[in-house]
Amino acid sequence: MSPRETKQVSESRTVMTQMVMPNDTNPIGNLMGGNLMRWMDIAGGICAAKHSEAHVVTASVDNVSFSQPIHLGDVVTIEGTVTRSFRTSMEIYLEIFAEDIKGGNARMTNSAYMTFVALDDDKKKPIPVPQITPLTTEQQKRYDAALRRRQLRLILAGRLKPDHATELKSLFFD
Amino acid sequence: MSPRETKQVSESRTVMTQMVMPNDTNPIGNLMGGNLMRWMDIAGGICAAKHSEAHVVTASVDNVSFSQPIHLGDVVTIEGTVTRSFRTSMEIYLEIFAEDIKGGNARMTNSAYMTFVALDDDKKKPIPVPQITPLTTEQQKRYDAALRRRQLRLILAGRLKPDHATELKSLFFD
Amino acid sequence: MSPRETKQVSESRTVMTQMVMPNDTNPIGNLMGGNLMRWMDIAGGICAAKHSEAHVVTASVDNVSFSQPIHLGDVVTIEGTVTRSFRTSMEIYLEIFAEDIKGGNARMTNSAYMTFVALDDDKKKPIPVPQITPLTTEQQKRYDAALRRRQLRLILAGRLKPDHATELKSLFFD
Amino acid sequence: MSPRETKQVSESRTVMTQMVMPNDTNPIGNLMGGNLMRWMDIAGGICAAKHSEAHVVTASVDNVSFSQPIHLGDVVTIEGTVTRSFRTSMEIYLEIFAEDIKGGNARMTNSAYMTFVALDDDKKKPIPVPQITPLTTEQQKRYDAALRRRQLRLILAGRLKPDHATELKSLFFD
Amino acid sequence: MSPRETKQVSESRTVMTQMVMPNDTNPIGNLMGGNLMRWMDIAGGICAAKHSEAHVVTASVDNVSFSQPIHLGDVVTIEGTVTRSFRTSMEIYLEIFAEDIKGGNARMTNSAYMTFVALDDDKKKPIPVPQITPLTTEQQKRYDAALRRRQLRLILAGRLKPDHATELKSLFFD
Amino acid sequence: MSPRETKQVSESRTVMTQMVMPNDTNPIGNLMGGNLMRWMDIAGGICAAKHSEAHVVTASVDNVSFSQPIHLGDVVTIEGTVTRSFRTSMEIYLEIFAEDIKGGNARMTNSAYMTFVALDDDKKKPIPVPQITPLTTEQQKRYDAALRRRQLRLILAGRLKPDHATELKSLFFD
Repeated sequence: MSPRETKQVSESRTVMTQMVMPNDTNPIGNLMGGNLMRWMDIAGGICAAKHSEAHVVTASVDNVSFSQPIHLGDVVTIEGTVTRSFRTSMEIYLEIFAEDIKGGNARMTNSAYMTFVALDDDKKKPIPVPQITPLTTEQQKRYDAALRRRQLRLILAGRLKPDHATELKSLFFD
Repeated sequence: MSPRETKQVSESRTVMTQMVMPNDTNPIGNLMGGNLMRWMDIAGGICAAKHSEAHVVTASVDNVSFSQPIHLGDVVTIEGTVTRSFRTSMEIYLEIFAEDIKGGNARMTNSAYMTFVALDDDKKKPIPVPQITPLTTEQQKRYDAALRRRQLRLILAGRLKPDHATELKSLFFD
Repeated sequence: MSPRETKQVSESRTVMTQMVMPNDTNPIGNLMGGNLMRWMDIAGGICAAKHSEAHVVTASVDNVSFSQPIHLGDVVTIEGTVTRSFRTSMEIYLEIFAEDIKGGNARMTNSAYMTFVALDDDKKKPIPVPQITPLTTEQQKRYDAALRRRQLRLILAGRLKPDHATELKSLFFD
Repeated sequence: MSPRETKQVSESRTVMTQMVMPNDTNPIGNLMGGNLMRWMDIAGGICAAKHSEAHVVTASVDNVSFSQPIHLGDVVTIEGTVTRSFRTSMEIYLEIFAEDIKGGNARMTNSAYMTFVALDDDKKKPIPVPQITPLTTEQQKRYDAALRRRQLRLILAGRLKPDHATELKSLFFD
Repeated sequence: MSPRETKQVSESRTVMTQMVMPNDTNPIGNLMGGNLMRWMDIAGGICAAKHSEAHVVTASVDNVSFSQPIHLGDVVTIEGTVTRSFRTSMEIYLEIFAEDIKGGNARMTNSAYMTFVALDDDKKKPIPVPQITPLTTEQQKRYDAALRRRQLRLILAGRLKPDHATELKSLFFD
Repeated sequence: MSPRETKQVSESRTVMTQMVMPNDTNPIGNLMGGNLMRWMDIAGGICAAKHSEAHVVTASVDNVSFSQPIHLGDVVTIEGTVTRSFRTSMEIYLEIFAEDIKGGNARMTNSAYMTFVALDDDKKKPIPVPQITPLTTEQQKRYDAALRRRQLRLILAGRLKPDHATELKSLFFD
C-alpha cells in the first residue's frame, strides 16, 4: 500500500486522555514532567504513524516548559496534529490540557513540537512521507513557521551554521 | 457549584487513545482482556465524572465479549458516552476500536456498558446526577434500552425478581 | 500429550493473593474496579489453562458489580474454579475476598463468571477441552446453571434469539 | 483487639499465584531474580501480617539461590508459612513452585526464609507477636531449626559472636 | 539549615544507571524517547535537589534530539551536573550513554539541558538557590553559555523580545 | 572478542540512583524490601555483565537485613563491585545508601553479596569469567573472605558438608 502524496491535518489528529495515577506523581503529589513527556511521545508517535502509515521513531523534542502543576487525579488530554512534513520526517504539534476530575479548573498547561521519522517495514531506513495541505489560517501559520523551528533545531544540533539560517533570522530580527 | 439538571451526551464524551505496550500483552502477544477492561474503567470513570461534576466509583460492568485479538503495537481508541442517568448513577456506553500502528486494519473490537455512582466531596455518600436529554435517534435508542439493561443488572445481582422486570420481558418476548 | 477427557474441579482450582499497592488505587484511595478485573482475568486464565492444558484467550466476562470498596493495603484473594466446559470453551467462577492487612474485616466483595477458549500450540485455532465431573451439590448447581448463563451471553451478543433460549426462560419464569 | 497468644501455622498460610509477564523478565526472557524476591517479600509480608494481626516490615532475607530458570508465561506459586515467632519478629518459610502455562514441567524452583517485625498502630514500635504451636513433624523440624538460622543471621549481622552460637555449632559439627 | 551560598559542580553530580526492560521499548524493540526523557527528569531532579537542598519541580527541557537507537537490554547511564544557578532556578546538563549488556558498543547517545526550580518546605513558593563556582574550563564554558540558553528559552516562551537577547545574538552572529 | 584474563574492580563498578516513587512503597509509606532487592538484582547484574562481558543470570543472594526504613521521595544509591571471580561465577558486593530528597540524613542502609553466572551467547551454558586483581587493602579483604562466604553458601544449599568447610571454620572459631 503506497500512502497518498498529500494529506490533511485532520486525518491523523490524535486525542489521548489519561488520569494522573499515584505512580505518575513526584513526592510533592504532582504529575512529574518526565511522565508527561512520556505520554506526549506516545501521542505524538501515534499521530505521526497515522499520517505516514508507517512505523516511526522519535527524532527530537523542542523546548518544553512546565509552568503549571497538574495534580493527582487530574484528567490530562493531549492533542497531536501534524504541522508539516519534510522528506522523511514530520513535525507534530502537541497541546496539553488538564482539568480536575470533576471537570473544573480546565486549562491548557503546555504545548510542544516533536519530530518523528518514518521507517520502512524492516524498521531500518527512513522513507518519504505524505505532505500536508494546510486548510485553515492556523494550520497555514504553523506550516510556515515549521521551517524556522527546523532551522533552530539544526543549529542546536550543530548541523547548520547560524549564518545560513535565513528563515530563522526573521524570527529574531523582523 | 451545583451542576445543571440536564446535560447533553456530547458534553462529557471522552476519547482515550492507548498503544499496546509489551507489558499489556499475554504470552501469546495480544492485549490481555483484563488490561482492556482496566482502560475501559478509566475512560468510563472520566466520562461519568465529567457528566456528574463529581468523584465517581465503578458500580458495575455488563457482559463484555472479546471476539477479536488486539496485537502488540496496535493503537486502541476508547470512546465513552453517557446513555442515561438514574438518580445517583450513570450508565456509560464504551466503544473500543483498534488499528495497527500504520493505521491499517481499523475495526471496532468491543463495546460495553458500565455504571458509575457519583459521590459527595467526602467521597462517602451518593449524590444526585444531571439527567440526559437525548438528541439523536441513536441516543434515544440507547436511552430507552437503558431501563431494560438496568433491570437485567438488578436481576443478576439478585435485587429484582424476574416477574417484576416488565421492561426486560419485552426484550425476550416481543 | 492429550489431556484426559474429564477432570475434577479441584484439579485446576487457582488461588491468587495480591496486596493493594498505591498505583492500584483511584484518587479516592480505593482499588480501581478495572485493576480488580485485570487480576480476575489473570487468575481466571491460569485456571482455564490448567484445566485445558493449553494456551487460552479471554472470550467474555459476565456482569460484575462492585458494591464494596477495597482499600489501599488490603489483601485481596481471588479463587477461580471451572464450572463447566463446552466444546472449546470453559466457564470459570471467580470469588473475590478482601481483608485488611491485619486480617480484619474479612469479606467476600465480588463474584463473576468469565469464559476462556483453549487454543492449539500455534495459538490460532480453538481445540476441544476436557469436560467437568461435578462432585459436590454446589459444583452440580453451578454446572447446571452454566447452560442458562451461556444462553444469556449468546442473546446479549446477538447470536441467539431469545425465543430459542429454552433454558434461560426457566430462569425468568419458573 | 488483642491477638491470641499462640496460633497454628495453618491460620496464616498464604498462597500467591503470579504469571510471568514481559516486564518481569530479563533480556534473556526469564523471570528476573529480583522480581521473584519482590513477590516473595509481598507474600511473606501478608503471611506475617495475618499471623501477627499487625502491620509488619521486612527485617531480613536469608540466602536465596536461583538454580532453575522460570520462563515468560510460566505460572509461579509462592506458599508462605510461619515457622517460629520470636518476641516481636516472625520467621516465614517460602516455597516457590513454577509450571508452564499448560500446567506442565511443574517443579519447586526455590525456597527461602524471611523475617518480619510486627509494628504497633503508629507503625513505629515493635510489638509482641503470637507464638507458634507446631502440629506436624515437618512443622516441628522447621520450628527447632529456626533457632540455628537466627544465630547465623545474628553472626552475619555482626550482632553475635560465633563462640556464643551454641545452637549453630551443632549445625556445623554434629 | 540554610544552604551555603556557592557550591561546586561535583557536590551534586548524579549518576543513574538503568537497564532497558521490555516495557520501556516501542514496538520496534528500542527504548522509547519518552521513557528516556522520564529517566532524565528523575536524574536531573535529584541533581537539582542535591544542589539546592530543597524540593524541586521541573521548569523546562531544552531541545533534545534522538539520533541513535538504544536497544532492549542495553545499559543506559545518565550523568547530571549543575551548569549554573539563577535566582531560584538551576540549569542541569545531562549526558546519556548507552552500551550493550556485555559492555560493548559504548556510545554517548544524547545530551540535554533541563531547568528546575527550588521550592520552600510548603512546596509552594520558589526559594533562592546556591550559586555555582566553575572550576574547570569545561565548567566555565557551560556556565557562560547558560545565559544564552536562558535567553533562547525566554524567547521561545514568549517572555523576552528577541531584540533584547543581547547574549543570544552573539550565538547566531559572532 | 575474548575478554582479558584478569581485570580490576574499578572497571565494572556500577552506580545506580533511584528515587522512591509511590508504587515502590508499602502501605506504611516506606520502600518495600522486595523492591530494593529488585534494584539490587539489576545493579548487580549490570556490574557482573560488565566484568564478564557476557550475559549473566542471578545465582544467589546472601543474607540481607533491612534495619533502617527508606521513605517515599528518598534518593537511593546502589554501588556494585566485583569482589572475586570463581570459574564461571562472580561475587558482587552491593552497598545501598539513602538520603532524603534535600540531601539530608545520608546513611548506608544495607549491604549484600550476590553471585551471578556468565552465559555463552546462546544463553545456555556457563562460560569462564576474568579473574580479579585486588589493588587496595579493602579489595584484598573482600577477595579473601569471598572463599568463606562461598563455603557457607554451598553448605546452606546442601552441596558441601560442614566438616569440609575448612575456610569457613576459621570464621566461626578463630
